[in-house]
Amino acid sequence: MIKTAILGYGTIGSGAAEVLEINKKAIAERVGEEISLKYILDRKDVSGDKREALVTTDFEKIVNDDEVKIVIETMGGTGAAYTFVKAALEAGKSVATSNKALVAKYGTELMEIAKAKNASFLYEASVGGGIPIIRPLYDALCADEVEEISGIMNGTTNFILTKMAKEGSDFSEVLKEAQSLGFAEADPTDDVEGYDAGRKISILTSIVSGKQVNFEGVHMEGITKITAEDMKYALVLDRAIKLVATSKKTDKGYYAVVSPVMLPDSHPLYPVNGVFNAIFVKGNVLGDSMFYGSGAGMLPTASAVIADVVNIAKNLGKHIPYDWSKEELKLLNYEDMTRKFFVRASGEVKEREKEITELFGDVAFVEAAGIKGEFGFVTEEMSEKDFAGKYDKLNNKITRIRLG
Amino acid sequence: MIKTAILGYGTIGSGAAEVLEINKKAIAERVGEEISLKYILDRKDVSGDKREALVTTDFEKIVNDDEVKIVIETMGGTGAAYTFVKAALEAGKSVATSNKALVAKYGTELMEIAKAKNASFLYEASVGGGIPIIRPLYDALCADEVEEISGIMNGTTNFILTKMAKEGSDFSEVLKEAQSLGFAEADPTDDVEGYDAGRKISILTSIVSGKQVNFEGVHMEGITKITAEDMKYALVLDRAIKLVATSKKTDKGYYAVVSPVMLPDSHPLYPVNGVFNAIFVKGNVLGDSMFYGSGAGMLPTASAVIADVVNIAKNLGKHIPYDWSKEELKLLNYEDMTRKFFVRASGEVKEREKEITELFGDVAFVEAAGIKGEFGFVTEEMSEKDFAGKYDKLNNKITRIRLG
Repeated sequence: MIKTAILGYGTIGSGAAEVLEINKKAIAERVGEEISLKYILDRKDVSGDKREALVTTDFEKIVNDDEVKIVIETMGGTGAAYTFVKAALEAGKSVATSNKALVAKYGTELMEIAKAKNASFLYEASVGGGIPIIRPLYDALCADEVEEISGIMNGTTNFILTKMAKEGSDFSEVLKEAQSLGFAEADPTDDVEGYDAGRKISILTSIVSGKQVNFEGVHMEGITKITAEDMKYALVLDRAIKLVATSKKTDKGYYAVVSPVMLPDSHPLYPVNGVFNAIFVKGNVLGDSMFYGSGAGMLPTASAVIADVVNIAKNLGKHIPYDWSKEELKLLNYEDMTRKFFVRASGEVKEREKEITELFGDVAFVEAAGIKGEFGFVTEEMSEKDFAGKYDKLNNKITRIRLG
Repeated sequence: MIKTAILGYGTIGSGAAEVLEINKKAIAERVGEEISLKYILDRKDVSGDKREALVTTDFEKIVNDDEVKIVIETMGGTGAAYTFVKAALEAGKSVATSNKALVAKYGTELMEIAKAKNASFLYEASVGGGIPIIRPLYDALCADEVEEISGIMNGTTNFILTKMAKEGSDFSEVLKEAQSLGFAEADPTDDVEGYDAGRKISILTSIVSGKQVNFEGVHMEGITKITAEDMKYALVLDRAIKLVATSKKTDKGYYAVVSPVMLPDSHPLYPVNGVFNAIFVKGNVLGDSMFYGSGAGMLPTASAVIADVVNIAKNLGKHIPYDWSKEELKLLNYEDMTRKFFVRASGEVKEREKEITELFGDVAFVEAAGIKGEFGFVTEEMSEKDFAGKYDKLNNKITRIRLG
């Protein structure tokens, strides 16, 4: 019998407890031993909950209990979660976490402690919810050099963008709806500004580069400025607007960027709608592959956390080396990345053609049915810096979106 | 330095040699030791090949060389490949193979020998080419009970069906084209009759059930009877016809079936076109997930073989337990599976409505532009057996396709 403790009895924490219960038998067969839950750390009132008897507010009881071999951290944040996880690892316990903020900020340090203690620090659920991505990057793509990871890694923004595209509604309207349905938080900043996706792509970049990436160095743009009109142009272009987090390897190093991107219908991420997440990976020998699934939700994310628990249980006393080094990876300046851009400008094409082609060279003009007094155009490939310089000089511009 | 030998220097075998060379440095870093190729077993003339010096026709030299720790089997078939792999395992070497026929027929026995010798028998590349699926089933879904696996697992037939759908051409025409492009073999039986997909779904069913599945027990139907007209009806129904291999767990046991299926545009497998493969997995807690990538090709498949080699190299002297037991899994009779069916019948709807609804109950009638003198209808959900009885009694039927 291997005993565990859950820190944080919210959506994912209670999901983890459920998964341990629902699949108790199958898990015991795979591990060769039963995995049981001994404590739940939470401060809220749990009167009447079926696991009431396990709940404690005293972390010391957990960290000092030698029977507890695996700690499941599902509190979120980088305050108490960091203190508790560090203490648990230092006490020789292994940790499975769903907390991307913790991994992005303190992952390097926590991996080192785990290694020194012959324990493990696993974090599959911190990226892509239930989608297996971290383990495949370490184990399945181990014959490859990963050249690109691009993903829809945030369910809230994908839900909003999908609804906007379908219904022709504006961002603020759909956000309110998403909030009332529980698909967006009361303070949605982390999701809609791209910070959540930014943390995830910084974790994935650390994995493929083997070095520590500072989340703050990722260039992040959110979806708050996307409008119903942008969606109409996307439709005309046979494209979909998605919040894409990308990590790209070049000869000079790595780029990491989060921003709305218009994807063509031939792109594997194009049909990924609603709360689903998908992560596209390009290996130098594997070529294109994609991992798709529920990016959030109680049971899918809990499935990933418990998969980590099972892997730890099979390897108790050994360090599972899903690590990167503490050497810092300096990300390249995103302004040097090249791509095509879509621009909206007011007026008529024939009046402005000269001004625009003089600035941008060859462009493809686009008009969308039902949108008057403006038009769009798609540029050739150019660097972000070049584009920004030209866009700056353009008169009567409305907005611009990157092409993927 | 860990030494390997490749058995069979065809497309995948030479791809494996390439991958070891291209990613030599990255692989050495991950393993902690260089992996080098010592022998290539092949009978063909390799004069002028850059690896000519490694080529031998003498398997004894390989099996008796204690330096060779890992054997890469890419010969295909169940004749010499079986003899050689068995001998290699019995000599205490580990084996990575891309050979689904070998795994489907002799996997159980070869896993047992590997286990007894503290060696490993890995076969990631035998299903889905470069798509990581076997490792995720063992490791990433280890907190789940897998309820369904449905996949497009054969690139040749998916290439043919995609081309038929796009161009409105008939099967035999597109097959010839696929053969001239090298996407289909001179004798395409294994692919177009569904046997290749059948072997793969039998391997995946063995993995999720933990028991040996006899490939012959899988119900297999191919794509040779699919016509340009069928594709037109699919278009009207917003569906795509795909060759789908499915394994389904029920209270009574497992079904395993390969057949053409009309998938709705909401299905994750719907947009998977050309030579791409994708495998959809439903876990009881994870929910829906999908793995997508190059199902064939020299480098993608070789990437999967070499990923197995890397995993073996990291675990030399240990048995990696990607096994199932020798207990046989009796598959359920596919005739008890239920689903909806699409039927084409000749004549006019109004003349035949009574006959059809008397036989099939409520159906939805469909007509396709440009197809005269016939119509289609979609049944309610019913068992294969019930459907077959009714379809048998139906006059002037043309064909039927399952709905997914």
